[in-house]
Amino acid sequence: MAIDSLETPFGKRPRVFGGSATYFSFGATFLTPVALAAVVGKDFPEEYRRVLKERPIDLANLEVADGETFFWRGKYGLDLNSAQTLETRLNVLADFNPKLAFKKKPDYLFLANVDPVIQGRVLDQLAKPRLKFVAADTMNFWIANKLKELRKVISRVDCLVLNDGEARQLTGESNLIRAAQRVKEMGPSRVVIKKGEHGVLLFDEDSFFALPAYPLESVFDPTGAGDSFAGGMMGYLASTGDLGFQNFKKAIAWGSVVASFTVEDFGLEALRKIRLPDIKERLAIFRKISTF
Amino acid sequence: MAIDSLETPFGKRPRVFGGSATYFSFGATFLTPVALAAVVGKDFPEEYRRVLKERPIDLANLEVADGETFFWRGKYGLDLNSAQTLETRLNVLADFNPKLAFKKKPDYLFLANVDPVIQGRVLDQLAKPRLKFVAADTMNFWIANKLKELRKVISRVDCLVLNDGEARQLTGESNLIRAAQRVKEMGPSRVVIKKGEHGVLLFDEDSFFALPAYPLESVFDPTGAGDSFAGGMMGYLASTGDLGFQNFKKAIAWGSVVASFTVEDFGLEALRKIRLPDIKERLAIFRKISTF
Repeated sequence: MAIDSLETPFGKRPRVFGGSATYFSFGATFLTPVALAAVVGKDFPEEYRRVLKERPIDLANLEVADGETFFWRGKYGLDLNSAQTLETRLNVLADFNPKLAFKKKPDYLFLANVDPVIQGRVLDQLAKPRLKFVAADTMNFWIANKLKELRKVISRVDCLVLNDGEARQLTGESNLIRAAQRVKEMGPSRVVIKKGEHGVLLFDEDSFFALPAYPLESVFDPTGAGDSFAGGMMGYLASTGDLGFQNFKKAIAWGSVVASFTVEDFGLEALRKIRLPDIKERLAIFRKISTF
Repeated sequence: MAIDSLETPFGKRPRVFGGSATYFSFGATFLTPVALAAVVGKDFPEEYRRVLKERPIDLANLEVADGETFFWRGKYGLDLNSAQTLETRLNVLADFNPKLAFKKKPDYLFLANVDPVIQGRVLDQLAKPRLKFVAADTMNFWIANKLKELRKVISRVDCLVLNDGEARQLTGESNLIRAAQRVKEMGPSRVVIKKGEHGVLLFDEDSFFALPAYPLESVFDPTGAGDSFAGGMMGYLASTGDLGFQNFKKAIAWGSVVASFTVEDFGLEALRKIRLPDIKERLAIFRKISTF
């Protein structure tokens, strides 16, 4: 969980509620409850906690540690496809060592983007008895600086979710089909490559699926798009309980629609406003405009 | 029609047969005959003429002028999405003033990328009686240097086909949906925006369609992709005679598949090798991998 200071060509938002786990949870809870595991600092505003309570988000594993909440300051240029990081303060995330306790162990686990050492600790505590489905996200920083630890996590998950640049960086392959093949050789049977405004690719053992992004006239803030996409995807899979390829395609489309709302406003604003029928309506349009 | 010297990360091909009209014709003639209007120089190899005769391409309006054939030398980097022009010699294209004569006037006209003054001259000779459907392509050079003439051509066509960078340059809108809206305000009721490896967008008065590119593991040479796409699209429209939006979507998918073959080999090589069943087979796969 994070406090973000955002700047896009359409405005500035200092210190808004963000973080992978936050966007993921808001993306997923349209369809399924989420048990969140994260750390925040003593500065974590009571107001943010109230925001989390708008949704079926179990906060039992939300740890409050001495220190400040993770802080990120970033800026987007006109193309909005890539963020420029101006400042990162790990703060309480630097020493996060989650001690998880669940009333009922979840069947579906998503390891949001964080130090792969922490992702590994979460996996250790939940891997047995076997989870139904585990997916993980990562980012360029961990590929560059903790590749060994990251590769270990990747070898233990069913699905890796990453963007096109990360896929190329991780595998050394510029072609995304070959990059996905290399990722599968590292362990996961499924790979999801997010391409921002250009859509998403899904690969399993021997099939693939390509989907454009939902076309938007106004994109205000791409922050959280990828995390809420993953939330939508995981929420769809968990709520249907069907991990078959056909249903996975639908999960990808669902996640894409959720993300399309995210970027239409700053921070969490759009995700807080929309309701299930909004997603369903847009999904029906999406199907129409992407089928020939 | 052109002689191209190509360089990609996968090899060099000095002086191969190319040009918008060439790729367009090869893309279209899987489904329909083409009456080509173009100019070449006295250096135009007899061998190229034989290549054209492999297909139902009427060469009655292929003019041979004093001088040399248009020459382009270009290079692609690893991302293969944009060409770097190293040399352009207009040669006989500089003074091309087509005098068209058809046994039977065509119903469908595609104005391939060339000086808009020349596109206008072709339109003047064919516009009456009214054509069934006119589409045009263009490029950054004409947007920058002959905008007034280009706007006049655009105002006279039913459909403008251009790539994402050109759409942004022509309209000053970075968002492609808004850019397409601006293009429609210039005259065409349909706009096709090509995004290379990221697929294509189609806009008509009140609908749109988004399609990813056919995913390819090996791209060798993007030269001619856009022109053969347009050829496939126009060939599909002309052979079905149906300009409705649903059929236009299929034409876009057909064009995308034709282009996917083009880039798998250098120059015209792949297009010369494949046959109609190859396109149909890939189209069936494409439908499967892009439908959820």
